[in-house]
Amino acid sequence: MTQDLPIVRMKPKSNARAIRHGFPWVYDNEIVTDRRTRSLDPGTIALLQDENRQELGIVAFNPNSRIICRMLERDLTAKIDRYWLADRIEKALRLRERLYDQPYYRLIHAEADGLPGVVIDRFGDTAVVQPNAAWADVLMDDLTAALIAVTGVKNVLKNASGRARTLEGLDEDTRTVAGTVPSEPIPVPMNGATYMADLVGGQKTGLFFDQRPNHAFAASLCKDARVLDVFSHVGGFSLAALAGGAKSALAVDGSEPALELAAKGAAAMGMADRFTTRKGDAFDTLAALADEGKKYEVVICDPPAFAPNKQALEAGLRAYERVARLAAPLVAEGGYLVLCSCSHAADLVRFQGACVRGIGRAGRTAQLIRTGYAGPDHPLMPQLVESGYLKALFFRL
Amino acid sequence: MTQDLPIVRMKPKSNARAIRHGFPWVYDNEIVTDRRTRSLDPGTIALLQDENRQELGIVAFNPNSRIICRMLERDLTAKIDRYWLADRIEKALRLRERLYDQPYYRLIHAEADGLPGVVIDRFGDTAVVQPNAAWADVLMDDLTAALIAVTGVKNVLKNASGRARTLEGLDEDTRTVAGTVPSEPIPVPMNGATYMADLVGGQKTGLFFDQRPNHAFAASLCKDARVLDVFSHVGGFSLAALAGGAKSALAVDGSEPALELAAKGAAAMGMADRFTTRKGDAFDTLAALADEGKKYEVVICDPPAFAPNKQALEAGLRAYERVARLAAPLVAEGGYLVLCSCSHAADLVRFQGACVRGIGRAGRTAQLIRTGYAGPDHPLMPQLVESGYLKALFFRL
Repeated sequence: MTQDLPIVRMKPKSNARAIRHGFPWVYDNEIVTDRRTRSLDPGTIALLQDENRQELGIVAFNPNSRIICRMLERDLTAKIDRYWLADRIEKALRLRERLYDQPYYRLIHAEADGLPGVVIDRFGDTAVVQPNAAWADVLMDDLTAALIAVTGVKNVLKNASGRARTLEGLDEDTRTVAGTVPSEPIPVPMNGATYMADLVGGQKTGLFFDQRPNHAFAASLCKDARVLDVFSHVGGFSLAALAGGAKSALAVDGSEPALELAAKGAAAMGMADRFTTRKGDAFDTLAALADEGKKYEVVICDPPAFAPNKQALEAGLRAYERVARLAAPLVAEGGYLVLCSCSHAADLVRFQGACVRGIGRAGRTAQLIRTGYAGPDHPLMPQLVESGYLKALFFRL
Repeated sequence: MTQDLPIVRMKPKSNARAIRHGFPWVYDNEIVTDRRTRSLDPGTIALLQDENRQELGIVAFNPNSRIICRMLERDLTAKIDRYWLADRIEKALRLRERLYDQPYYRLIHAEADGLPGVVIDRFGDTAVVQPNAAWADVLMDDLTAALIAVTGVKNVLKNASGRARTLEGLDEDTRTVAGTVPSEPIPVPMNGATYMADLVGGQKTGLFFDQRPNHAFAASLCKDARVLDVFSHVGGFSLAALAGGAKSALAVDGSEPALELAAKGAAAMGMADRFTTRKGDAFDTLAALADEGKKYEVVICDPPAFAPNKQALEAGLRAYERVARLAAPLVAEGGYLVLCSCSHAADLVRFQGACVRGIGRAGRTAQLIRTGYAGPDHPLMPQLVESGYLKALFFRL
C-alpha cells in the first residue's frame, strides 16, 4: 500500500503513543539504529513505524540531530514534493491573508504550519526562508518554487545561519535563491508605523513580526506620552508609539546599525523630530536616565533572551528582575511599564514573578493590565509547549 | 502619629511578610480575635498590625468573611472617605479613558483598582456598582457621591446580589441609588457592534465587558464567514462577528431573554437578516447541528464556569473537553474554533489540554493562533493569582 520509502522504526517502550497523539518529534534514543538506518542521509524522507511495524507517518530523518525524526505527514499515501509543499504554504497563506491587509508577516512558523523546522518571513515581494532542518535544505529548490507559485513573491533569500542549524548539523549558507533581494533596507508597514528592515545585513537588523499585537497595544497607551524603548532593536515599540501619537520616543540599544535603521524609520514616518536614540548598554543607560531624573509615561523593555535554556534560568530571572527594578523608577506616576521576555525557559509565572519583584524592589506597586504573546502569524502546535516563548506584560504603576 | 482607628493584630507566625510584599488579604485564622475585635462591626475601617505591633496598613475588617481584612491603604495617614474614594476612581478612570473612545467599560475591578471587593461597570451615563465587601456597603453613599463627582454619571444602580456577597455575609439589596436607571435595555457600543444590555433585569442579561479583545480578534477572522456562537448570552461574539463582516451568525443559548436581546442588538445594527438564534441546551444543539451536517468557518463556545472551584475541576475539565469534541466537527476545513473558560480553577495549561484532547477525539488537528485573557479594563493584582480567570483559545483546524 505505501510508497517505496526507507523505514525507520521506534524502539520498544519508546513513546509511539505521544506520536499518535500529535507530538511531532522522535528523539535519537527512540529509534532503532542499525546499519541501514545509519546509511540514510540527513534530510531523507522516511516512513516511521512503531515497534510493532505499524506505520505512524511520513517523517524527515536526520541522524545528526537530537530530533532524529520530524513528522511531516500522517497520510501515508502523500508524496512529499513541490505540490505537497505548495499545499502547506497555501494553507498558511490563507490564515495570514485573513489576518493582515498587507503582505508583511511570518508566513510559515515551522511545525505549527506543517513544515517542521522551516521559518518563512514575508516582506512584500521578498521572502526570507530559514530552512532550519535538513529535509528543507535538501528540498530547498522545491520549497522556493512552491513559495513563488503560491504567494507570487519575486525574491527569495535563503537565510541559513544561527543556532538552530548548528543543532541540526547544518552549515551556514545564506544567499539569494530567486530574484534579487534588496541590498538596501526596505520599508515595512506595521501598526501604522514604518520600519526599515535590512534583510541581508549581517547585524541581525532584519525585522521580527512576533511583537506586532504587543506593539499595537503599547501604541494605544502612548497618545501624548513620553516613551522610552529599551533594547529597541530597529524601533519596534518606539516607532509604533510615535504612530500612536507619542509626544516623544527615545530608543536605546547597543547596536548602532539597529538605531540607524530606527531613525530612518522615524524619518520615513515624518516624525524624526519626535525621535531620539541613545547607544549604550541597557542597564547602564537605565541607571543613567534615573540619575538624570528622567520620567516617561510609558517605558518598554524588550531584552534578548536572558534565559535561553534551563541552565541559564536563575541568572536569566535575576536579569529580568534587574531590568524591572531599573526601569520602574523611570515610569511617571500612573504610567505604564511593558516588560518582555523571549526566553523559552522562563515560563509566564516565573517571568511575571521576577518582574513583580523588581517593581517592588523599586518601591512601586503595579496593576497588570495585559499579558500578550506572539502574534497569530506565529501559531503554536499545542503538543509542543516549547513553542510559546514570547511574553509581554503590561503593568501600570 | 496615626489616626484613631481600631486596631486588629496578626497572630504570631501568620504571614505578615506576604502582606508587606503586597498581598491584600488577611484570613480569619491569622487575626487575634479578642472581645474587642469581636465587637467590631462588619466593614469597620481598622489599622492592621503585625505580631510586633508594627503597622502594616489601613484595612477593611469583616468578621463574617473568611477574608477578615482587606488592605485598603498603605499610607497610615490616609483617611478613608469620599475624597479617598474619588482619588481611586479617578486613577481607574484615567486608564479607561486612555483605552476606550466611549464610556462603556469596567471602571473598577476590585483589588486591582484599589477598591477591594468593589466592581463598577459603566454604561455611558449609568453605572452599576457591586459593593461585594462589607466596607463598601457601609460607605455606599460616599462611593456613589465620589463616582458621580469623578465620572459625571447620572444614574447609579447598586447591584447587591450573588455568591460574592454571600461569602461576605451580606444581604441582597439591589436598587437605584442615584438618578433613574433605564428599565428598558440600553444600547452598548463595543467593537463596532451594538449590544442591548438589560441592567435591571433579573436574568443576568446585563453585559460583560471582559471578552472585548477576544470578541475583536474573533471578529477579525469572520469576514464572509458562517459563524456559530454557542453559549451566546446576549450575542457577545456573534454580534461582533456580524460587525466584522460575517455572512451569517447563529447564536445558541439556553436563555430566551438573552437571545431576544441578541436579536434586538442585530436589529439595531441593521443586520437582523444575517442573524438567527436557537434556544436550547448547548451540548444537545452542538450534536444536533452535526447531525444536520452543518459547517461553519468560525465556531465559538463561551460556556459558563464549568470548574468554579477546585472540587469541580475534574468534572469541569471533562465538560470543556466535551464542548471541544462536539464543536470541532462543525468547523469547516481551515476554519476556526474559539474555546473559552471563565473558571478560576481550570488554569491555562489544564484548560488547553482539555480542549486539545477534545479536538483530537473529534479526529481533528489544530494550530493555536492566539491565547487571550480579559481586557485591560479588568486589570490584575499580580499578588493575587486568583484574579486571572478568563481564557480564550483561538484554534485553527
